[in-house]
Amino acid sequence: MQPKMTKRQFLQSIGAVSGVAAMYRSMNALGMASPVAAGTTQFQLTPGTGNGTRVAILGAGVSGLVAAYELSKAGYDCTVLEATDRAGGRNLTARSGDVIEEEDSRQWVDFDAEDHLYANLGPARLPYHHTTILGYCREFGVDLEVFTNDNRAAFFHNQDRFDGPVAARQVMTDTRGYIAELLAKAVNRNALDSELTGEDKELILNLLRRYGDLDPDDLYVGSSRGGHLGPHVHAGLAPGEVNDPLDLSQLLRSDFWQYKLHFSQFLDQNPTLLQPVGGMDAIVAAFTERVEPLIVYGSVVDEIRNTPDGVRIVFHTSHDSPDTTRAVAAVYGTYRGIIRALEADYAICTIPAPVLRDIPNDFSPATQSAIASIEFTNAVKIGFQAQRRFWEEDHAIYGGISWTDQDITQIWYPPYGYHRDKGIVVGAYIWDPEPGLRYSEMTPSDRLQAAIAEGELIHPGYGDEMESGVSRAWSKVRFQRGGWPQSYKPPARLTRPDGRIYFAGDQLSALPGWQEGAALAAHAAVAAIDERVRMGG
Amino acid sequence: MQPKMTKRQFLQSIGAVSGVAAMYRSMNALGMASPVAAGTTQFQLTPGTGNGTRVAILGAGVSGLVAAYELSKAGYDCTVLEATDRAGGRNLTARSGDVIEEEDSRQWVDFDAEDHLYANLGPARLPYHHTTILGYCREFGVDLEVFTNDNRAAFFHNQDRFDGPVAARQVMTDTRGYIAELLAKAVNRNALDSELTGEDKELILNLLRRYGDLDPDDLYVGSSRGGHLGPHVHAGLAPGEVNDPLDLSQLLRSDFWQYKLHFSQFLDQNPTLLQPVGGMDAIVAAFTERVEPLIVYGSVVDEIRNTPDGVRIVFHTSHDSPDTTRAVAAVYGTYRGIIRALEADYAICTIPAPVLRDIPNDFSPATQSAIASIEFTNAVKIGFQAQRRFWEEDHAIYGGISWTDQDITQIWYPPYGYHRDKGIVVGAYIWDPEPGLRYSEMTPSDRLQAAIAEGELIHPGYGDEMESGVSRAWSKVRFQRGGWPQSYKPPARLTRPDGRIYFAGDQLSALPGWQEGAALAAHAAVAAIDERVRMGG
Repeated sequence: MQPKMTKRQFLQSIGAVSGVAAMYRSMNALGMASPVAAGTTQFQLTPGTGNGTRVAILGAGVSGLVAAYELSKAGYDCTVLEATDRAGGRNLTARSGDVIEEEDSRQWVDFDAEDHLYANLGPARLPYHHTTILGYCREFGVDLEVFTNDNRAAFFHNQDRFDGPVAARQVMTDTRGYIAELLAKAVNRNALDSELTGEDKELILNLLRRYGDLDPDDLYVGSSRGGHLGPHVHAGLAPGEVNDPLDLSQLLRSDFWQYKLHFSQFLDQNPTLLQPVGGMDAIVAAFTERVEPLIVYGSVVDEIRNTPDGVRIVFHTSHDSPDTTRAVAAVYGTYRGIIRALEADYAICTIPAPVLRDIPNDFSPATQSAIASIEFTNAVKIGFQAQRRFWEEDHAIYGGISWTDQDITQIWYPPYGYHRDKGIVVGAYIWDPEPGLRYSEMTPSDRLQAAIAEGELIHPGYGDEMESGVSRAWSKVRFQRGGWPQSYKPPARLTRPDGRIYFAGDQLSALPGWQEGAALAAHAAVAAIDERVRMGG
Repeated sequence: MQPKMTKRQFLQSIGAVSGVAAMYRSMNALGMASPVAAGTTQFQLTPGTGNGTRVAILGAGVSGLVAAYELSKAGYDCTVLEATDRAGGRNLTARSGDVIEEEDSRQWVDFDAEDHLYANLGPARLPYHHTTILGYCREFGVDLEVFTNDNRAAFFHNQDRFDGPVAARQVMTDTRGYIAELLAKAVNRNALDSELTGEDKELILNLLRRYGDLDPDDLYVGSSRGGHLGPHVHAGLAPGEVNDPLDLSQLLRSDFWQYKLHFSQFLDQNPTLLQPVGGMDAIVAAFTERVEPLIVYGSVVDEIRNTPDGVRIVFHTSHDSPDTTRAVAAVYGTYRGIIRALEADYAICTIPAPVLRDIPNDFSPATQSAIASIEFTNAVKIGFQAQRRFWEEDHAIYGGISWTDQDITQIWYPPYGYHRDKGIVVGAYIWDPEPGLRYSEMTPSDRLQAAIAEGELIHPGYGDEMESGVSRAWSKVRFQRGGWPQSYKPPARLTRPDGRIYFAGDQLSALPGWQEGAALAAHAAVAAIDERVRMGG
């Protein structure tokens, strides 16, 4: 009888038949490989493999930049077509003097020109386990600092509950306290005797007393964890009284527990989170420093074609009409010395699905419908410059997030530039479909006004502190049309090439909206191309 | 009928009769004053009040420095007697070339000379609500960055449970999950019907499902919050399987829940915590920049006396014998041009109680027994220089703390210098009395060896990574004799002066071991002296 194949043997057999790229995907699915994550890219094609092979990369977002960087290192001849005049895609940091364009608006960023006065309008966090993107930060020397999600000084706000915003420390402490008290009661009433044996019963009571800071009668009557009455949150010169707990029934009727209360429990939002010092686009800058000569800016893709032994990407520069370009390119391939039909051996397409679906192509119907199936969120972010760091001065809030049940959803306090003059607050970060749509459809100045009005309920006098603002509604951005895929499950069809065209971007990962997903999808695509090349194309 | 006095009216009446200092303490006790904490000192004596009044300050730790700074600004003539050759007291940052002295040992700090290679051997954290000390950071321009307590990538380790260390994300997620599942069962069994009415019952079930990430049957079967199987902690390219939950019975039998699991729930350990960039002694440096001319280093206090209209502090320099100094000072007051008996109008004594109790004095018996009642902890910290940031490279641990049931208690990963070469790990932070005593009684080199051996159980190969180390057993330090007061309640007797001698230091606050307590106690002492001076002495 043949011994049962181990997981490792099975993987080796996949490796032998299907190659490294398939093994790479299978390891992920089977739960194998090293138990630790490493702060290094751990990705490397064999140098020289790609010599003589041309790859067209569509989009200079994070996925396109990663693909260009890795393929170039292995000798591939890459051209990156980027529709806009900048790299980074959704990795966008707004600073003094920047122009923020949407389909029907242009905003001038009127922040002061100081190195701590910027707003990350796209990704702003790097979870500790996003080791691919952190590995690039390490390799490129991008300085990192902590990004704070969970700040117990920040507020929870529900318009119908409590008398204004309440401190996170209070909401979280009281919730734990009530849960511990209720469970202790149930245990003491022997309601869980079928689950908890004698010794476990006493042990869980001990746990609950500490978990919820219960009193000697196993009741929750408030805790110093929720803060003290008096001039300080802390005890000060003599142990003082603690705040009264919030009413349980009101807590249950608030929306805090829907996810706000548990937000930093989510794996992607767990501490430690990091950010590049000075703005998220430091990552883009580190890549472009290495691959910028490969990027053709202002190249709008008009057609994506498989040819008998390669690919043809028809494009126009953003300065003239697509019809002209297409006509010229079809006949001549080039126009006034600029390549308008890029011929290559392979392509990696990172164009977001909501844009890609409208670009003429000869993909199979299955590919086309997979692309059409990817829906993006209506994400909106707003950045305000405040004349005074009132959150630090008045509330001792250093970074972190206040939550509200209003459309703006969140207010972020900058986790950088502590105690300096002025600061940039994220005055709205919206991703729920309806409020996202409401804010997306407003003019930029209406968005700012609306966000100020909502912020006033959390910080009275909020509007008076604000000097200028900028918003980004990602669904209104011409070459993006959305924030990120709504589904965590990328269509399987797109994990395989359509002819010689491979797909990438965060939309091809289970980490939608994360740069890590964009980088991993790029790795998968370049590994697959490299393998095919090594197998003889 | 006279209307009932409001709290504010009551305070105003205290202010009128007893003055500002009493009002300051009463506000703290009554739970009044502004509901928000401010990132500014909010403390200011009237400039010029102190002109002509001499104050002797005993000890140039944080409390003495704060007192000297505030009194000087108001015109007082201050002299700070400091027994050692440096200011800061327990605020001690070890760097390349420093000498760390204890009663029976001297250690040479053999770290590399790099700005990120230092160990804060005393205080290392600034909680967000410690607005007095943060206010000084703001006023003095001390740059701040985040200190991380709660890192879900760090480990929990119990020698008798599980198969080695387990990630904090798993321990925390599973504990929440089991608590939520058990409470949901009890609610579903109607065991809590007397506490939860119909609608609340459904609401709390909804809360628990989110709180613990329960499955559709209200069971906890693991959660993505605890991490995924596979090459990444995160989902990667396709949604994968999550880790199996830890066994509840083993969790209950571990020591995690005693306080380790709830550590960052404690008010003093809540996020956001901050630290000065480059070392905690940046705060000391900022103060000494302003008051250094007032400090007489190497001045060991031998006697503390009230005189008919002032105080006399007899001291010797650390270079000659106390007997000689005392004899000379008694007759001449000075010796070779150096003042040996400092005469002043008032004194502020910040000397730690375990040292103060042995200094001859004429305090009242009540004062003496109050001083004798303050017991200090045997706190021990160890710093190791690692040749490689293996915690980041191998485990994606960026700052934070691993916990163990061994004597070392904690391993801290540096929350600074991310991705740079080498790093300083806190290899032990001990405050429980017995392990504290065990480590205090070892020689410095034995401490390092013991801490390495314990660290190996959390990080195999730990010792091979370490290049050098330094330890600090605070109970073995001549002018400290301990880490901080064990009680959170300072003796009431010492909140009042003994004659013209006032007491300060963190030992006079409900924040033992915290610089905030030291600063608040200094404020209370200087406010009381200032008031007495304004009332005519």
